[in-house]
Amino acid sequence: MNLTAQEAAAFLQSRDGYLILTHRRPDGDTIGCAVALCRALRQTGKTAFVLPNADATVLFDPYWGDTPAPRDFIPETVVSVDIASLSLFPENALPYRDQVELCIDHHPSNEGFGKRNCVESDKAACGEILYTICTHLLSPRESLPQEVALPLYLAVSTDTGCFVYSNTTPNTHTVAAALMATGVDFRAVNKRHFRTKSYVRLRLESRMIETMDLHHNGQTAIAAISLEDMAQLHAAEADVEDIAAVVGQLEGVRTAVTIRELKPGECKLSVRTQADLNASAVCKRLGGGGHAAAAGCTVYGSVAEAKAAILDAINTVKAGG
Amino acid sequence: MNLTAQEAAAFLQSRDGYLILTHRRPDGDTIGCAVALCRALRQTGKTAFVLPNADATVLFDPYWGDTPAPRDFIPETVVSVDIASLSLFPENALPYRDQVELCIDHHPSNEGFGKRNCVESDKAACGEILYTICTHLLSPRESLPQEVALPLYLAVSTDTGCFVYSNTTPNTHTVAAALMATGVDFRAVNKRHFRTKSYVRLRLESRMIETMDLHHNGQTAIAAISLEDMAQLHAAEADVEDIAAVVGQLEGVRTAVTIRELKPGECKLSVRTQADLNASAVCKRLGGGGHAAAAGCTVYGSVAEAKAAILDAINTVKAGG
Repeated sequence: MNLTAQEAAAFLQSRDGYLILTHRRPDGDTIGCAVALCRALRQTGKTAFVLPNADATVLFDPYWGDTPAPRDFIPETVVSVDIASLSLFPENALPYRDQVELCIDHHPSNEGFGKRNCVESDKAACGEILYTICTHLLSPRESLPQEVALPLYLAVSTDTGCFVYSNTTPNTHTVAAALMATGVDFRAVNKRHFRTKSYVRLRLESRMIETMDLHHNGQTAIAAISLEDMAQLHAAEADVEDIAAVVGQLEGVRTAVTIRELKPGECKLSVRTQADLNASAVCKRLGGGGHAAAAGCTVYGSVAEAKAAILDAINTVKAGG
Repeated sequence: MNLTAQEAAAFLQSRDGYLILTHRRPDGDTIGCAVALCRALRQTGKTAFVLPNADATVLFDPYWGDTPAPRDFIPETVVSVDIASLSLFPENALPYRDQVELCIDHHPSNEGFGKRNCVESDKAACGEILYTICTHLLSPRESLPQEVALPLYLAVSTDTGCFVYSNTTPNTHTVAAALMATGVDFRAVNKRHFRTKSYVRLRLESRMIETMDLHHNGQTAIAAISLEDMAQLHAAEADVEDIAAVVGQLEGVRTAVTIRELKPGECKLSVRTQADLNASAVCKRLGGGGHAAAAGCTVYGSVAEAKAAILDAINTVKAGG
């Protein structure tokens, strides 16, 4: 069953005992949506928690507050936010895969695994949908409380690279204006996520640039961060957050691939493209998916094997395959 | 005489023969405002031109169109946009210093040199003021034409680092939403100004990071780009656009100074600070000025002398001087 954001809010008002799920390798959108929804539900008198996510980096530590669910919490109603498919459920969310009462998401590739699905794929961030839902949940307030607005600002800003990515829409800005008008410290969010880089991060970026492969007359760049790079530079997971944006910025590059060796024999690939190549089509050839301009997949092999596989997939799609 | 944006629009409707001035070392805000105003005035049937600016980099080439004034144009009405003081007039604008009929600006330090001044210092970008003026000029249109909206998007986005700087307000986002809703290619602007870096630029950034001085327990960073750096890396002016943002991003840095040696014995300094230090107060000690979080000044001396002078100014202001 497909619900509008308003219908989703009405459903949320009708139940209680909420557990909110985030996706594997969580980003600001999934965490921000989960925390905001949890707090909005509590404002209406409901019991609500967010399922802890072991993959979450320290970058998001300031946002969780008291929302993580205690170990013994038994939910009545499970809600997922920003999760496109069951394969993106974290380990500890697997017991709930058949119990998602409401799936809220913005990915075009959403599988509709919820008993109810509120999917708006025209939204740059899932946070834009949650903004509407929280506004309905908490009306007739004049504006959202800051404890709800701040995580929503995190969601909307991080999923658009602070309003710079091509997925940004007028609605993204309208929502940002409304969230900022509540007086939240958006400057701290911007500083933390978009204007702060560690020395380690800067050195990682340099190494990526120095070692990347260029193809198609410089229009395709394939960069990689190996386990060895991570070890040599003493890099932590927080140092590689959104590192896929680095390669795409090089002048003349139209297809930017960033490969991360997650463990020996397993590489995660991020593909960002311009309008002349569909990133989702490329990644689907390797079992992945995503958006037209930004998609991802996993290759089970070495960094060299991942490089060869993605180049082959790009060439095939470019050739109309 | 101080005018509101609406009064400024009424004044602009009452005159003709416009020449619009931009500031020295022009940025996206002054160029975007000038081009947008020129086109809006032409839409209302007025004659309008922008005074060419010899300092303008190739980065802004796509925006000028047919707005630059021919050499023999004799203006009836001179308007300045985003110019805080007469000292920021480009060489070819000096003949008009006593003839500015309307000065439109958002700098708190604006000297009020116009016969009429429309200064709104709560605006992050002068483009936000021009948005209001152009809307009044062109009403009762439903929305601005794209040829006006695109340079205004350039103005608003570049002066806020694409909505990431601390000067960004809800109004900035509201204006951006309205401009984007006209259907302009904001993605091309974002790509060009915020998501593209040349190899030369990346190498300049690395050199700045490698050679910078840290003070105050790592909270103050002073970086420099010398004429020698520029020559060695074959860097052009476009490669250093907004390079002051680089140093401030380093984790733990609260006061970021970027020094550019413009010619032997002349350095331009950019100072960016957090709330605990007023950048404008620091720069005023060296004859400059600006905003509380971002200001600038010129030091006549070597890079080493500029470093010593700004460190002294920072220490004095920190000590309450």
